[in-house]
Formats: sequence, structure tokens, C-alpha cells
Amino acid sequence: VVDVDGVQIGGRDVVMIAGPCAVENRSQILETAQAVKSCGGTILRGGAFKPRTSPYSFRGLEVAGLELLALAREETGLPVVTEAMDTMQVDAVSCYADMLQVGSRNMHNYALLEAVGEAGKPVLLKRGIGATIEEFLESAQCILDTGNPNVVLCERGMRTFETATRNTLDLAAVPMLKHHTRLPVVVDPSHGTGHWWMVPAMAKAAIAAGADGLLVEVHNCPEDALSDGTQSLRPEKFRTMMNDLRAVAEAVGRRCSTADTDHVVRPLMAVG
Amino acid sequence: VVDVDGVQIGGRDVVMIAGPCAVENRSQILETAQAVKSCGGTILRGGAFKPRTSPYSFRGLEVAGLELLALAREETGLPVVTEAMDTMQVDAVSCYADMLQVGSRNMHNYALLEAVGEAGKPVLLKRGIGATIEEFLESAQCILDTGNPNVVLCERGMRTFETATRNTLDLAAVPMLKHHTRLPVVVDPSHGTGHWWMVPAMAKAAIAAGADGLLVEVHNCPEDALSDGTQSLRPEKFRTMMNDLRAVAEAVGRRCSTADTDHVVRPLMAVG
Amino acid sequence: VVDVDGVQIGGRDVVMIAGPCAVENRSQILETAQAVKSCGGTILRGGAFKPRTSPYSFRGLEVAGLELLALAREETGLPVVTEAMDTMQVDAVSCYADMLQVGSRNMHNYALLEAVGEAGKPVLLKRGIGATIEEFLESAQCILDTGNPNVVLCERGMRTFETATRNTLDLAAVPMLKHHTRLPVVVDPSHGTGHWWMVPAMAKAAIAAGADGLLVEVHNCPEDALSDGTQSLRPEKFRTMMNDLRAVAEAVGRRCSTADTDHVVRPLMAVG
Amino acid sequence: VVDVDGVQIGGRDVVMIAGPCAVENRSQILETAQAVKSCGGTILRGGAFKPRTSPYSFRGLEVAGLELLALAREETGLPVVTEAMDTMQVDAVSCYADMLQVGSRNMHNYALLEAVGEAGKPVLLKRGIGATIEEFLESAQCILDTGNPNVVLCERGMRTFETATRNTLDLAAVPMLKHHTRLPVVVDPSHGTGHWWMVPAMAKAAIAAGADGLLVEVHNCPEDALSDGTQSLRPEKFRTMMNDLRAVAEAVGRRCSTADTDHVVRPLMAVG
Repeated sequence: VVDVDGVQIGGRDVVMIAGPCAVENRSQILETAQAVKSCGGTILRGGAFKPRTSPYSFRGLEVAGLELLALAREETGLPVVTEAMDTMQVDAVSCYADMLQVGSRNMHNYALLEAVGEAGKPVLLKRGIGATIEEFLESAQCILDTGNPNVVLCERGMRTFETATRNTLDLAAVPMLKHHTRLPVVVDPSHGTGHWWMVPAMAKAAIAAGADGLLVEVHNCPEDALSDGTQSLRPEKFRTMMNDLRAVAEAVGRRCSTADTDHVVRPLMAVG
Repeated sequence: VVDVDGVQIGGRDVVMIAGPCAVENRSQILETAQAVKSCGGTILRGGAFKPRTSPYSFRGLEVAGLELLALAREETGLPVVTEAMDTMQVDAVSCYADMLQVGSRNMHNYALLEAVGEAGKPVLLKRGIGATIEEFLESAQCILDTGNPNVVLCERGMRTFETATRNTLDLAAVPMLKHHTRLPVVVDPSHGTGHWWMVPAMAKAAIAAGADGLLVEVHNCPEDALSDGTQSLRPEKFRTMMNDLRAVAEAVGRRCSTADTDHVVRPLMAVG
Repeated sequence: VVDVDGVQIGGRDVVMIAGPCAVENRSQILETAQAVKSCGGTILRGGAFKPRTSPYSFRGLEVAGLELLALAREETGLPVVTEAMDTMQVDAVSCYADMLQVGSRNMHNYALLEAVGEAGKPVLLKRGIGATIEEFLESAQCILDTGNPNVVLCERGMRTFETATRNTLDLAAVPMLKHHTRLPVVVDPSHGTGHWWMVPAMAKAAIAAGADGLLVEVHNCPEDALSDGTQSLRPEKFRTMMNDLRAVAEAVGRRCSTADTDHVVRPLMAVG
Repeated sequence: VVDVDGVQIGGRDVVMIAGPCAVENRSQILETAQAVKSCGGTILRGGAFKPRTSPYSFRGLEVAGLELLALAREETGLPVVTEAMDTMQVDAVSCYADMLQVGSRNMHNYALLEAVGEAGKPVLLKRGIGATIEEFLESAQCILDTGNPNVVLCERGMRTFETATRNTLDLAAVPMLKHHTRLPVVVDPSHGTGHWWMVPAMAKAAIAAGADGLLVEVHNCPEDALSDGTQSLRPEKFRTMMNDLRAVAEAVGRRCSTADTDHVVRPLMAVG
């Protein structure tokens, strides 16, 4: 079991890590965080450092994004996970985040694996798009070898010939990883499919397959999202999905970490 | 909804198609069929014509296998689905089977698609190992174009770079197929994973993802199976899985077609 | 070495099998065949039976197409290879063709493999889009097991995640197949890339890698082609390519079967 | 055309970049470098920083390895290319190497792409194992955007379902990349196949397909290599291959950079 600031991943509760692809501005992250909290999400995700595939594409707010995540944590009480994309970002990310994410593109970046391991915080390690399960476990081992036992594995879809979905979500990785390791396993149905309307079905399937949690993209206004809008759930869809997941979790002897069903979304008066 | 001799596929009930990879002999198919029946299976599967990759490998019992399937139907009341691998086999298979299967290797065999369509019985069409969802739907259309509306689609795993599993089971195909067609969709977690111990987890996941049924390999004695033994469930494992599936089906508003829980397995006195 | 009506495949000469995807009409096949002949092609290809993915798509001229191929052979002296897609077509195809083709979609169609083997004519076996080299060799073995030793293997591209090309041409299959078998190996750069302008580069590469021949789509008027127009070479491009291939063949100790450089294309007076 | 310390990549000459996977010790790198030089190699490769998939696997000699590469350059006059695996290694690698390599695992490591671009030296960018050609070009653009125009692209094999070879060498990437960019393209048949005996065939094919150069693993004693021994050529095989490549290069209007055919391998008296 990995403890992220009080949230247990790998126990009886299915953990819901949710939030936008990228932190874009104050109101976006605070509104989304409130929505995540009120729907029963247990950890807030959001990217401060983003992959930059062109000099004109959005690179994330960087340190300012980390500060907004910290503010969202303060407002909601949700622990925060965010990605470090280079060894030089690890210190800054560690200062603000409760859990460090190693993204799919960096699963084979051994210097980074070592640096996040040594940072001492829990690590969310995403499977590479072209990586086998065996290689995924080797990368996890690189982190464990630094003496940091708090690694959570995330299946997020493989690259295959199928183009109807953004990636091919390999749910068999869940039982296979659990066969080989005691590390918790979560699933990202947002990147795994690339279509918001497929997320609920695959989220249910992931829990049924034995996942310890989900990583889901939620955005307060997906049509305005700077990235991944087509695979982000709007808050009301996320709420509906959370309600549906509860029954599936119970059917497999788990519990969905969604205590706040009677939570009243408080008006975001502080938000400009 | 496709009706197979009284069993509705695509309705509220999740249909369980189970049986051995191949019909091997009288006692094997009858004992397995009884086990399938007693555990709540609703359709019996079993191959009479098998792919022959070498002159020394088992090719199936052919017409004798069809006769044994008919006998098993008589003994258990379960409708029977079996594969036709060539246009010349379609007549014989149609005589005995309640549903005709087109295997993964023949998804692009247009002459066969047409022949099974024209045979008039319900068709179980398996996705090709290297076929996109779009091509899968095109092949289904070839059958529909013969005037036969009773096509059931079966996701059974794609060929990818991952070697830990026999194939990569593409459960996202379930919601994607349902998005594009009203045809029922079933999932084969046995071929999809290649490991019997993974079948229950992926069966649950398939139902959670919205599958209308499962195609599962069950063998009365997997260690003696002439083919696919490593991915076949023994009857007691199948029974346990069926019990577990019920809760998952209910969690997604479905019902598992498993009324016979108090069924007493009658001694197979007739079996030599 | 496989002998196709006098043309040796697997000897010192690199054999050039060329022609349209499908036989469309008399003038198309005769003009294209003359062009193939005049540019140094040694075997004429052309489909009479075509895969039908929709009831509205072109299915080929069937027996009339076979007759036109026979006419083209008579006019040019080129042996003819064409595809049989079902066991029921094997007799008809055998009557007209000098070599029977098993297409990529049917590489796992064991009934067909056996039927073409038993027909006694040389067989051109194309690798399945999702088939490993090992499976390709097993399918070849199925033909050999009928007592027919005249099998030519054809690499034509695999299905991968890359979408820039229609398929991923696996040229390493050439030395790998030759490592495991003495059967001749030819390469189809037309299907392998899907772009006519890539065909010459990949044709050169195939010969350099050790291929015994090429299978190339040539059409007298690609913009009017009923299928595969974008990957078909027009005759003048084919002629240029043939000239370029000669040097590459010599560089690897082979000879390009292109004696007719001074051939005068005779006017097709007989063609309506 | 990219100039690496006097060696032009992308001109008429086909450039031969050769050397061991990793720098292991003084005699190994010096002997191998001499062999590369004497056989006509034009740039020396060798890893000082190596991917570490386990704490027990060889991580490379690091800075000591860079110093040995510099020594080998002094002894042979060959420019040196070696990999930087993290932004923090870029300065050290830039001090010693004439060209910086970004490995396959780091093709999506944007911080590293930027850092090597800004280092100002020519960059050898390898295609990711699961990366499309489009993504490959985007990563190259990230380097170009730093103002560094000297990028050489390297096709080194994709991850596919085929297991007979280590990767699937996508030689069609050569004409496709040249269709979209003016950057030079080289091919790595060693990683692309994983078998030393396949390297010569695929090297010929790469040149025939239009490659501007090759990246080949050569080791003075492959059976003792700490990594990649099975895909490394011993010097005498490399010499034979170089002789064979010359004719292929000429057949496609190129020249193989192999002037030293009468070079006498001088005894390595200085080597302990």
C-alpha cells in the first residue's frame, strides 16, 4: 500500500486521481479541483510541466502551475500529483507535489527514474507507449532500487495498429502486473482511449479487472482545454461515472473512495 | 438481439458461451457440456474443424465432432456454436450447429462470410488478429448483406508487441463497436490472454465494459487437452468465475444467465 | 528454384512479376501486359477474383478476368499469376493461370493452402498482414505437405502502428526467410508502402537485401484504376525503375531479367 | 549536409558510423577504433553513458569512457559520436564528442532535445521504438528550433509483433523522411535486426533505399562484449561488408566512404 498524504493506494478503496491534463490558470484548476473533490475524487492531478512538441505549443505554467496546484490542495484538501519531465525539474516538483509522476514518454529515462526515486515522495510511473510489461517492471525496479518503495504503476494504453482509439488500453496488464509485483496498479482510461465518452465504460472495466485506482482527466470546461479536451470529462459526467463505479467496485469486493456524495459545491467566490 | 435457439444475445442477460477448444472424444465433450450447463453456461462451444498448421497436428474430428456436439446438445439442451473454416464445410456445419462461427483467421475470407451468411443461421464473427475495428465491421457487413441479420461480434485479442499475454484483449472495442453498430458484442478472454488464471479478471472487465456475453474455453481436464489447455478453465474454476460474474453483471444493470446454481450434476452414466 | 512456365524464380535472375491489381477490361490488361513485357517484366500479375469488402465494391471480372489473362499471356508470352480466394475457385484459376497466388488475407486459410497445393501448379504465398515469419513458414509447409514443392514466399508488409505507409515492409524478412528455408522469396513494395513514388526505392532495397524477385503493381492508367491506383506505377515509371534495378542487382551478384530493353512496343491494333 | 569534424553526412558519400555498443576499456575501444578506421569507417561510435535497467547491469564508464573515446579519436583521426541520456550529461558529452546522440528511449525527452540542440554540436537523433515518422520529425524540429540545424535522423527499428528480429527495421522510413525533410537519414541495422549475420543484408538494403549512412555495431571481440554482442560484427566481417557495400552504393549513384582499403592495421603497441 502506498500512502499519498493520507490517501492509501492499494488498499480496499479504489482511488480516484482526477483533474485536468494541464494547469491552465487559477480559476480552471480551482474549479476543477472543487468539482473533483465534490464528486469523490481523492487525489488531484494536473500538469505544470508539459511535453513541448513544437515551440508554439503550450509548455505548461511550470513553477507557477505548481503554485496553483498547491493552492488547489489548500482549498480542497486533496493531495496533488504532477509530472517531472527532467532531472532538473525534480526538486521543484518535489517541493510542491505530494506524488511525482513519471510520464509515458519518460518510462525509459533512467536518470529521471533515479532522481524521482531519490526525491523520496511516492511515484506514479506510467507505462511507455511501446513498452512491454516486463520493461515496465524493470523501470519500476529502478525506482525501488533507490530505496523508495512507494511506486504506483499506471497502465495508460499501448501503441498498436488500431486507430479508432488513441491507444489500446491493455487491461490484462492489471492482473499480469499484480501477478508479478505487489505494487498498486492504476489505470488511465482517458489517455487509454482518447474519447471522453469511452472513459466510463473503461473505468468500470478497469475496476472489474482489479485496478487499485483510476487516473482520469476532468476539466471544468473541456471545449476550452489547451490539451486533451476530447478525452476530458466535464464535472457532471465525472459525477455520474463516480456513482456508477461504486456498484462495480462493490461487486469485486472493493470500495469506491467517494464519501462526499452529499458534499455541497461551495461557490468559488475567491476565484477571479 | 440475436436469438440462438431460444438464447437471446444482446438482451439484458449476459450470455455465457463455453466449452472446449476442440471436440476430442465422447466423454470429453459430454462431461464438459454437463459442467458448462450446471455452472450456468447458455451455449456450448467446441471445434469440430480445427486449423491445421502441420500435417501432424490435430485437425479436429470433423463430421464426427459435429455429431458429438449434437449429442451434447441433446443431453444438455444447450445450443451449439462451432466453426466452419471453408465454404465447403458450411453445409455440414449448418446441419448440426445452432450458430456458425467464423474464426479470427477467416475474418477476411469473403467467400466464407458470404456462405455462412447465406446458410441462414446466426453467425459468431471473431475479429482478426490484425484487423482494425473498421475492418471488423466491414466483414460483419458482408454477412449482413446476404440478408442474414443475426451476427454477433466477438473481440478476442489483437496482435501487438506485448508477449506476456497471447494477444492483447482490446476491451475498448466493446464500447466502440456498440457506438457504431447495434450488433451484440461478446468477448473471448481465453484467446485474449492465453492464460486460464487471467480469464476471470478479464471476464469481469468485459462485462463491466458492456459486453453482451463471453466466449470461454472450459475443458473437463485441461492438462489433457489437445489444444489450448493452458487457457482453458477446469469446471470448478468456471463455476467460481460464474458466481463472481453475477455481481459484476448486476452492477452494470445486466443479469448473468446463470439460473442453474442449484443444478445437480447428474452422473454421466451414458458415457463410455 | 521454382519454374513458372520457363521463368526460374530463385536462380541468378531477379524475377519481375508485374501488372495491375485487378483485371478490369480487355484494353487495360492487354496494354498493361505489353508494357510489362516491353520493360522487362517476366511474369504478368492481375486479379480476377478480388476481395469484396462491400456489396458495392468491385469484385473482379472472375472467370472473364481469367480469360483476359490467358489472352494477355498469348499476346505477350508472359506466364500469368493470379489469386484464388476460396477452395471453390481453385479449379478455375488452375485452368488459366501458370501460378496460383494465395493472398495475404488467406495465409491462415488452411483449406485453401491445401487446395492450391494439390492443384499442382507453382504457388505464390503472400505473408499475412498480422503473421509472424514463423507462421508464414508454417503456412508454406502446409502447401509443401501436399507434395507440391513449388512455393514462392512473398513479403508484402506488416500491420504496425505506423500510418505514413500503408503497411510496414519488413525487408529483414528476406534474409530471415532465406536463413530458414530454401524457398525463393519475393517482395511486394506496392502493397508494402501504398505509395507509387516509394516503390522504386523499396524495390532497390529488396534486391539489395537478397530478394529473388519483385511483385509490382503496374497499370496503364493508374488514375482510372478501380483499386490500388495510388500504389500503381505507370509504364514509364516502371521502365525507369527497371533500368535502375539492373545496377543494384549486379552489385549483389544477381541479374535483372530485363533483356527486352530494345523491345518495340507494338501498337495494340487488336484492342477495342 | 551535416558536417561532423570534416565528415559530410548527406552528401554523395555514404557515411559509415561504427564502433562498439559501449566503451568497455582502453584496449577494446582502441582496437575497435583502429579496425573501424582501417575498414573504411568514417565516424567512431561508442557509449559512455548506458541505460541502466538494473542496479547490477553495466552503466558505462561515464566520463572515463568519454576520455577513452577522445583518445581513440586522437589515435585514429575519426570523429566521435556518443550518447547523452540526461540534460545533466550534455555538458560533459559536448566537451569530448564531435556529435551528440539522442537515443531511441529519449526521442520524446524534450528537455534533452533542447539541451543537445543548444550544445551546438551536430546531433544524431534516433527514432523511438514506438514513435511514428511524424513524431520523429517533431522531435527533430525541437532540436532545429534551438537554432541548431545539424540534425541527422537515424532509423533503428520499430517495435512490432514480429519476434524473429529484435525490432522491425522500417526502411521505408528512409524515402519517407527524405520526402518530408532535407535532413540526412542514416540507418542502424544492428539494433534494427539484433543479429550480426543480418547486418550486411540490411546495410545493403539501407543504402539501396537511399540512406546517407549507416550506424553499425563493431566490436573487436563480440563474445566478450558487455552488451549487444549478438548484434556486433567482428572486424573481419565488417571489412567484408564494407567491400560489398561499395558496389551497392555505386549502383545508386553514391560512394562508400572507404578510401583506406590498402590501409595497414598498425600493431596496437601502445595498448595495455
